[in-house]
Amino acid sequence: MKKEFPVKQLGAAHIPSSLPISCSSKHKDFKFVDDDNCILHDVAVSSTNEKQAPYSFEQAGPRAHSYFDSSKVRAGIVTCGGLCPGINNVIRTIVMQLHHNYGVQRIHGFRYGFQGFIPSYQHDIMDMTPSNVRNIHNLGGSILSSSRGPQDPGEIVDCLERNNIRILFCIGGDGTLHGAHAIAEEVERRNEKMSIIGIPKTIDNDIPYCVKTFGFETAFSKAVEAVQAAHSEAYGYNYGVVIIKLMGRNSGFIAANTSLACPDVNFVLIPEVPFTLEGEKGLLRSLERGFEAKKEQGRHPHSVIVVAEGAGQDLMENNGDERDASGNIRFKDIGFFLKENIQQYFKGRYPVNLKLIEPSYMIRSLPANPHDAIFCYYLADHAVHAAMAGKTDMMVGYWNGHFTHVPLEVVIKDQKRINPQGEFWRQVLFSTGQPGDMYSPA
Amino acid sequence: MKKEFPVKQLGAAHIPSSLPISCSSKHKDFKFVDDDNCILHDVAVSSTNEKQAPYSFEQAGPRAHSYFDSSKVRAGIVTCGGLCPGINNVIRTIVMQLHHNYGVQRIHGFRYGFQGFIPSYQHDIMDMTPSNVRNIHNLGGSILSSSRGPQDPGEIVDCLERNNIRILFCIGGDGTLHGAHAIAEEVERRNEKMSIIGIPKTIDNDIPYCVKTFGFETAFSKAVEAVQAAHSEAYGYNYGVVIIKLMGRNSGFIAANTSLACPDVNFVLIPEVPFTLEGEKGLLRSLERGFEAKKEQGRHPHSVIVVAEGAGQDLMENNGDERDASGNIRFKDIGFFLKENIQQYFKGRYPVNLKLIEPSYMIRSLPANPHDAIFCYYLADHAVHAAMAGKTDMMVGYWNGHFTHVPLEVVIKDQKRINPQGEFWRQVLFSTGQPGDMYSPA
Amino acid sequence: MKKEFPVKQLGAAHIPSSLPISCSSKHKDFKFVDDDNCILHDVAVSSTNEKQAPYSFEQAGPRAHSYFDSSKVRAGIVTCGGLCPGINNVIRTIVMQLHHNYGVQRIHGFRYGFQGFIPSYQHDIMDMTPSNVRNIHNLGGSILSSSRGPQDPGEIVDCLERNNIRILFCIGGDGTLHGAHAIAEEVERRNEKMSIIGIPKTIDNDIPYCVKTFGFETAFSKAVEAVQAAHSEAYGYNYGVVIIKLMGRNSGFIAANTSLACPDVNFVLIPEVPFTLEGEKGLLRSLERGFEAKKEQGRHPHSVIVVAEGAGQDLMENNGDERDASGNIRFKDIGFFLKENIQQYFKGRYPVNLKLIEPSYMIRSLPANPHDAIFCYYLADHAVHAAMAGKTDMMVGYWNGHFTHVPLEVVIKDQKRINPQGEFWRQVLFSTGQPGDMYSPA
Amino acid sequence: MKKEFPVKQLGAAHIPSSLPISCSSKHKDFKFVDDDNCILHDVAVSSTNEKQAPYSFEQAGPRAHSYFDSSKVRAGIVTCGGLCPGINNVIRTIVMQLHHNYGVQRIHGFRYGFQGFIPSYQHDIMDMTPSNVRNIHNLGGSILSSSRGPQDPGEIVDCLERNNIRILFCIGGDGTLHGAHAIAEEVERRNEKMSIIGIPKTIDNDIPYCVKTFGFETAFSKAVEAVQAAHSEAYGYNYGVVIIKLMGRNSGFIAANTSLACPDVNFVLIPEVPFTLEGEKGLLRSLERGFEAKKEQGRHPHSVIVVAEGAGQDLMENNGDERDASGNIRFKDIGFFLKENIQQYFKGRYPVNLKLIEPSYMIRSLPANPHDAIFCYYLADHAVHAAMAGKTDMMVGYWNGHFTHVPLEVVIKDQKRINPQGEFWRQVLFSTGQPGDMYSPA
Repeated sequence: MKKEFPVKQLGAAHIPSSLPISCSSKHKDFKFVDDDNCILHDVAVSSTNEKQAPYSFEQAGPRAHSYFDSSKVRAGIVTCGGLCPGINNVIRTIVMQLHHNYGVQRIHGFRYGFQGFIPSYQHDIMDMTPSNVRNIHNLGGSILSSSRGPQDPGEIVDCLERNNIRILFCIGGDGTLHGAHAIAEEVERRNEKMSIIGIPKTIDNDIPYCVKTFGFETAFSKAVEAVQAAHSEAYGYNYGVVIIKLMGRNSGFIAANTSLACPDVNFVLIPEVPFTLEGEKGLLRSLERGFEAKKEQGRHPHSVIVVAEGAGQDLMENNGDERDASGNIRFKDIGFFLKENIQQYFKGRYPVNLKLIEPSYMIRSLPANPHDAIFCYYLADHAVHAAMAGKTDMMVGYWNGHFTHVPLEVVIKDQKRINPQGEFWRQVLFSTGQPGDMYSPA
Repeated sequence: MKKEFPVKQLGAAHIPSSLPISCSSKHKDFKFVDDDNCILHDVAVSSTNEKQAPYSFEQAGPRAHSYFDSSKVRAGIVTCGGLCPGINNVIRTIVMQLHHNYGVQRIHGFRYGFQGFIPSYQHDIMDMTPSNVRNIHNLGGSILSSSRGPQDPGEIVDCLERNNIRILFCIGGDGTLHGAHAIAEEVERRNEKMSIIGIPKTIDNDIPYCVKTFGFETAFSKAVEAVQAAHSEAYGYNYGVVIIKLMGRNSGFIAANTSLACPDVNFVLIPEVPFTLEGEKGLLRSLERGFEAKKEQGRHPHSVIVVAEGAGQDLMENNGDERDASGNIRFKDIGFFLKENIQQYFKGRYPVNLKLIEPSYMIRSLPANPHDAIFCYYLADHAVHAAMAGKTDMMVGYWNGHFTHVPLEVVIKDQKRINPQGEFWRQVLFSTGQPGDMYSPA
Repeated sequence: MKKEFPVKQLGAAHIPSSLPISCSSKHKDFKFVDDDNCILHDVAVSSTNEKQAPYSFEQAGPRAHSYFDSSKVRAGIVTCGGLCPGINNVIRTIVMQLHHNYGVQRIHGFRYGFQGFIPSYQHDIMDMTPSNVRNIHNLGGSILSSSRGPQDPGEIVDCLERNNIRILFCIGGDGTLHGAHAIAEEVERRNEKMSIIGIPKTIDNDIPYCVKTFGFETAFSKAVEAVQAAHSEAYGYNYGVVIIKLMGRNSGFIAANTSLACPDVNFVLIPEVPFTLEGEKGLLRSLERGFEAKKEQGRHPHSVIVVAEGAGQDLMENNGDERDASGNIRFKDIGFFLKENIQQYFKGRYPVNLKLIEPSYMIRSLPANPHDAIFCYYLADHAVHAAMAGKTDMMVGYWNGHFTHVPLEVVIKDQKRINPQGEFWRQVLFSTGQPGDMYSPA
Repeated sequence: MKKEFPVKQLGAAHIPSSLPISCSSKHKDFKFVDDDNCILHDVAVSSTNEKQAPYSFEQAGPRAHSYFDSSKVRAGIVTCGGLCPGINNVIRTIVMQLHHNYGVQRIHGFRYGFQGFIPSYQHDIMDMTPSNVRNIHNLGGSILSSSRGPQDPGEIVDCLERNNIRILFCIGGDGTLHGAHAIAEEVERRNEKMSIIGIPKTIDNDIPYCVKTFGFETAFSKAVEAVQAAHSEAYGYNYGVVIIKLMGRNSGFIAANTSLACPDVNFVLIPEVPFTLEGEKGLLRSLERGFEAKKEQGRHPHSVIVVAEGAGQDLMENNGDERDASGNIRFKDIGFFLKENIQQYFKGRYPVNLKLIEPSYMIRSLPANPHDAIFCYYLADHAVHAAMAGKTDMMVGYWNGHFTHVPLEVVIKDQKRINPQGEFWRQVLFSTGQPGDMYSPA
C-alpha cells in the first residue's frame, strides 16, 4: 500500500524493542504497530467512491430537505438516569436550534425522566422557550430533573400522541437508550410518524460507537483535583497511601483518564483488568516494592492508588464469611476492601498511613467545562438536524472525529470497554509505572 | 454504497430545509450533508487490504524493533517560540519514557530555544533526569525557556555531533518545524544518522494534519472566563458592549471555540472570514439591529464581541492617514479599531458603554488542564516511539482520532484554517446568531 | 499597662534589629512595635463602661425594636458605578432578609444606577421577590445593571415619594455614597421619614472606615492568576520581564495584595509610593541589579512587575513633549510607559523580552468567591437591620473585625490609602524584596 | 458614652422586632444589639494611655532590637498533625524572612512532625534554603511531611541542643501547641535560652484567641464546590436530598461558613448545637415541612443538608442496640446515620432520593488560595519577628484585625466554638432558613 505521506526512516529498525511491556507475560499478545499501518486521511466518504466503505456510519449534519414542517411540528425533551455535566447545555442548544434556526414554536420539557410521560405521577410539563433556557448552561444537573428506571412505552407514546409531539429527544445512558428504542418500536407498531432521537449521556463513557460521551471530560477533570489532593495527603506522611475511589461500574475510563492526566498516580485499578492482592505479582507486594524503590532512591515512600468502583469485584466475592456477616453493599465496596487489606498487610511491616477519598457525586453534578460545552453543542445540533430530517430510532454518535447517526438497535447491544491489550491501557501502564500484570493465578 | 449500520428514516424528507443559512447569499455554496455520506468505522488500515488507502498517514505507536541502542543513545530536547500550556508535560513524558521504558540514560535539555545550540550564546545544557522533571507538569511555561527566531542549522548539527546526540525532539510551531526540517536536511547532507522529531506546539491551533495542538484546549478554556466576565460587564450597563480580543493571527480557532463554549457571545470575527463595518450588512448596523431586537423583546440591550487579533486587517489598511501618523502596530490593533468605530457610530444613536478586554498572555502561560495533560502525554509517548524506531524529519500528528507520523516537508508547506463554508463555522454562526454574511461590497 | 496575657521573653532584646528596612533612608520614620503595645481583647463596649470608648462606631446588628412597620413599608435597591464581584449576593440577601425575616412585601429594584429614578430615562422598575433573586448569586455583575454619574437628588426623592418607598439601599462607591448623602439631606429637608443606607462597593478597596470592601478578595484572587501566568511568561525567555497593570486609581490595594499572595512578584508600584525610573535607586537600575543578582546565583534572569494604574502618574507628566503630541489618555498609561522605558533602557545592555498584561475588567465581573459571598451576606444583613431600625444617612462599615454604622458625612470626607510607613507596606516590601526606596531626588 | 461618629436615626424605634428569631423559644436568650454599643476605633493601645487596656494581647510586629545574633543563630521548623492548605507558604516565608531580612544562615527542617527530633526514627534533617523553598507555595500538603501524636519533650530538647538550634517554629494545632509548650517548659527547666514559637494550624478553625486559622478559607471555599454539586444532585431528582459531611469534630466552623457562602443549603448541623431527629421540631419533620412548603409554592421539592462530622454524636449513642452490633466507628458516622434515618422516615411518605457526599481530605490537601497565601505570609512574618526578639512559649494570634502574641499556656486551656446565641450562628440560621430550635426534649 502506497502512503501519500511517506516518512523518512534512518534505516531498518533491527534491535528488538527494549520496552518492558514487550517481555511482560501479560502482554505477550500486545501488538506493536507495523510501519505499514496507515491512518486514512479522509474518513467521510460519499457514494461516488462506493467501494471504499465496507463498514461505516451515516454522517450527521443538516440535510437540504426536512421531513417535518417546522412551523407545525412539536418537540419534546426528556433527561433520564444519573446526572452528568452538560445536560443543560444539550437542552439549551436543542431549544435554541429548533426555535431560531428551524422556527419550531412548541417545545415541551418532560420532567423527572420517563416518569414525566406517565399520568399517574402528575408531573407538569415545562414549556421550553429561548428565554427560559438562556442561562441554564451555567448550572450543573438538569433543569428538567431526572429519574431512574423504565416506564411503559405504551403509556409514553400515548402521552406523545395526546400532546401531538412528533419529535422526542431522549438524553440518557444505556437504560434510556433502551427505553428510547422501545418507544420507537411502539411508535412504529402504531404506524405513527415520530422521530425518536437518543443523545448519549453517561458519566462512565461506556456507550459504544461514541468515542466519548458529554460530561466525561468535566468529570475526570474534576477527579484530577481529588488525585492532586490525594498526592499531597500521601506525601504528607511517612508511608502515606491514599486510595481514591472513582465512578466506573463496568469500565474504568474515568479512573484511567484521571491517572493519565495526573502522573502522581502509582496504581490504577479498573473493572476490565483483573488483579490479585496476594502473591509476588499482587497489588500488596507491588505497593511494598514501590516503597522500597523510593527508599532506595532516597525518596519519601508514599503511594496514590486510583480505583474504579467496579474493579476487583471478584476478589470480594471470595471473602465468603465476611459477605455473610454484613450484607452485599458493604462487601462490594472496593475502596473499603482495599483499605482493610492494605492496612492488614502492612501491619508490622511499615507504619502505613492510609486514607480513602471518594469524590462520588462531586464529579458529575458540575456545569460543563468549555470542552464539554462545545461537545454538547455539537451533539444537540446534530440531534436537531437528524430529527428534522425525519431520522428515528437512532442516536447521535461520535467516531473518528466525526458525528454520526447510529441505530439504537446497534447501540443497545453493546458496551464500550477499555481494551487491556490496546494502546490506551498501554499508555496508562507506562504513566503509572505499575506492573502490567498484577495477576498471579497461584 | 451499503452502510453497515442503516438508520431508520420516517420517509423521504421533502420540505426544503428552513435553516436560515440555506438562503444566505454568503452561504450559497454551503453544502448540506447527503444521506449517502458515510463515516468509516475503521480508519487504521494495514497492508493486507491494500486498495483501501489511497491517501493516508503512517500510524504512530511503539514498534517491535528499535533503530537505536537504548543503552547508548543520547537524546536532546528543545522548546522554541511562544509558550503554550503543556510544554512541561511533553518534556516530562519524553524524559520519563526514554528513561523508564527504553532505558535511555543521557537526555539533554537545550535552553532558550535554538539559541541553546549556538556556542556564542553561552547557554548551559540541562541534564534531564526523572528526579528533575518529576513535578514540572504543574508549572506553566517551559522549564527549558524558549526563544524566537531561527539559528544556523549547521551550527546546530555541529552541536549535536559534539555532544553525540542522535535523537532531537523539537517542540514548537511553524517556525520550529521549519527549523527542524532544515536540521534534518543538514543531518542527511552530512550522512549522519540522527532522528529529528517535531512535536507540534501552537496556541493558534493552525498546524496542518493535526486536528488540534496541545495547550489549545487549556487556552480557549481560559478565554471562556474572559468572555463570561465580558458578558457580566456588557449586561452591567445600558447598551453595554464588550470586545474581547483573543490570540489568532491567521486563524480564528481560539476565538471560534471560545464563542462556541460560551453562548453569550453575539459576534465572533476571525481572519478567515472578511467583514465590513459599514452598510446594511456590516458589523455596526448588525450590532444596532441586535440592540433593537433585544429592546423589542423587552430585554436589556447589550452585546459581546469576540475578535481574533488577525481579523479585519484589510479594514485598517484602508484608513490611510491614521496609518501614516502612528505607525504600523497601533493601526493593526483590531480591538482598538473596533472600539473607536463602534464608539463613533453610536454617538447620537445609543449611549453605548464600550469596553475592550485583552487576556493576551494570560491564556497561554498556564499549566495544562487535564485534557491537555493527557494529550501531551500521547504526543510525547508517540514521539519517543518514533524516535527510537529511527523515524526522522517528521512530526507526530493527530488525525481522525489517531496519532500519525507526518513528514515535516509536508507540514511546513501548509497551514490549517477554519473553512468558512464548513460544518464548524456553520455551528459557530448558529451559536452566536450573527449574520452569516457581514460583507457588502458596495 | 498590665497585659492580661503576658508573653514570656528570653531576656531583654538588645541587638539592634538586622532588618534591612531599619537602615533604609526612606524608612527612617518606620516605627517598630514596642513590647508595651497592646491589642484590646474586647473592642465592642457598652454604655456601662463609659470611659473606655473615646473614639468609636455604633455597632451594627438587629435591634429589638423596629422603626418601620414591616407589613407596610416599601424598600428600594439601586446599584451604581463600576461592577464588583458580589453585587448580586448583596441584592439577594437584602431581598431574602426583608422578605423572610421581617415580612416586608414590596421591594423595588431601580435599574441602571441613579438613572433608574429619573423619569426621562424611562427605565422600568423591577419587582424584587425571593423567586426572582434565588439564583442570582451565581452571576457576576448586577442584575439591576448600573450607570455612572450623579443624578438630581430632588428628582430621586420625588421618585421615592411617588412610589411610597421609605427605605433605600444604595450599593456603590465614593460617588454613590456622596449621592446617597445628598438624597438623605434632601429627605431631611422635606421632613420625610426615609432610611437611606449605603453599602460600600469599590473594587479599589479605598472606602474609609471599612477595612475591606466586598468583591475585593475575589478581584485580587483573580489577579493572582494573571501574575502566575506572568511569571511563567517571564521565566519562559531569557531576561523575560512581564508588567501586569492592575486596577487602582488612587490606592494600590489590589496590586499590593496580589503581590503578597504571589511571591514571584519582584516589584510592585502603587500610587501611594512615588518612585523614579532613573538613578541608582530608580526602577530601571533596580531591575538590572535584580538580573545581575540572579545571574550571580546561577539563576535564570527574569522579572515580574505589578503596577497599579494610578502609580507613577507624576513621571509621565514630566515627559513634556510626548504629552503634547499624543494627548492625555495614552501618556497616563503607566503600563505602556514602563514598557517603553524599560525597552529603551536595556537596549544594548540585555536582550530583554518584555510583555504587558492588563487583566482589566476580567477581575471585577466575576461572581463572588466564597469569602466574598459571606462578606456580602454580612453587609446586606446589617444594612437591613439598620434600615428597619430607622437608621439613616449611614453606611455599613467593617472595622476591627466588627460591623458598624458609619455616618455618610464622615465617609465621604475621606479615602483609604496604603500607609507607606505602615505594617502592610513593610510586609509587601519584604515579600517582593524590592528596595524600600526607589526614589532619588537628584 | 459619647460616640465620635453619631449615626442619624429617624426617630425612636418602637415596634418590636418582627424577626422570627425574637420569638423562638430557643433564642429567648438571644441578645439584640443596643444602640449604645460601640466598636472602638483603635484597638492597639500603647502604654501612654494605660487605663484603657484592661484585657489585651501583646502586639505582634518587628522589634527595634533583637535578642539573637542573626549571624549565628540556628532555627528549626517542624509541621505536625493533619494537613492544611498553606503549610508550605508558612515554611517558605519563615525561611525567606530569616534569610533575606535577618541574615540567618542555617535553618533546619525536621521531618514527619515531632518524630523528626527523635533519633530512633532515623529521619533525616532537611536544609532549608531560599532555593529549595522558592516554589513550594504552589504545592498542597507539607514538604516536611507530618505525623500525629506527641514525642518526649526531653528527647526533642536534646536534639535541639545537639544541633545548636535556638529558635523552633512549631506549625500545628491543639496537640502541637501542647507539645510546643512542653518543649518550652523543658527548655526553661534546663535554663536554656531558646525561643519556641507556635503557629496555629487547624482545618477546624477551633484555636482560641485566633479569629481564623490559616487554610480555613481555602478549605471551606473548596467545600462550597461540594455543596454546589450537592445542590445540583438534589435538584436533579424528585425529593432529592443530599447530605454533605464536612470536617469539624468539636466545632462547626467549616460547615457553617460553607453554608453561609452557599445559600442553597437548607440545614446545617454542628457539634455546638444539639438537635433531635424526632418530634415536631426535629430534623425529619422539618425536612418534610420544607418539602411541603416548596410544593405549595409550586417549587420542586429538594433539600441540601450540611453536617459537621462531630454533630449529633449524642443521637447515635442513644441507639443502644445498633451500637452493640457494629462497633463504634460506624455508629459515630453522622452522615451514614442521617442517611439511614431519613431513608426510613420517608419510606411510604415521599419517594426521597438520598445521597451522601464526603469531600473529606479533598478540602485540606490543597495549595493555599490567595487569601490564605497572604494570611500565611503575615503569620510567618510575625513568628519570625517574635522569635528574633526573644519571645518564647507563645503563639502568633489574630484578634480584632491585629496580630498578637499569645502565651501557649493560655491557648492550650481553651478551644474556640461557635456561640449558639451569637451573631454568627444567627446569620447562619437566617441564611438557611432552618428552624432555630430543632430540639424537643419530649
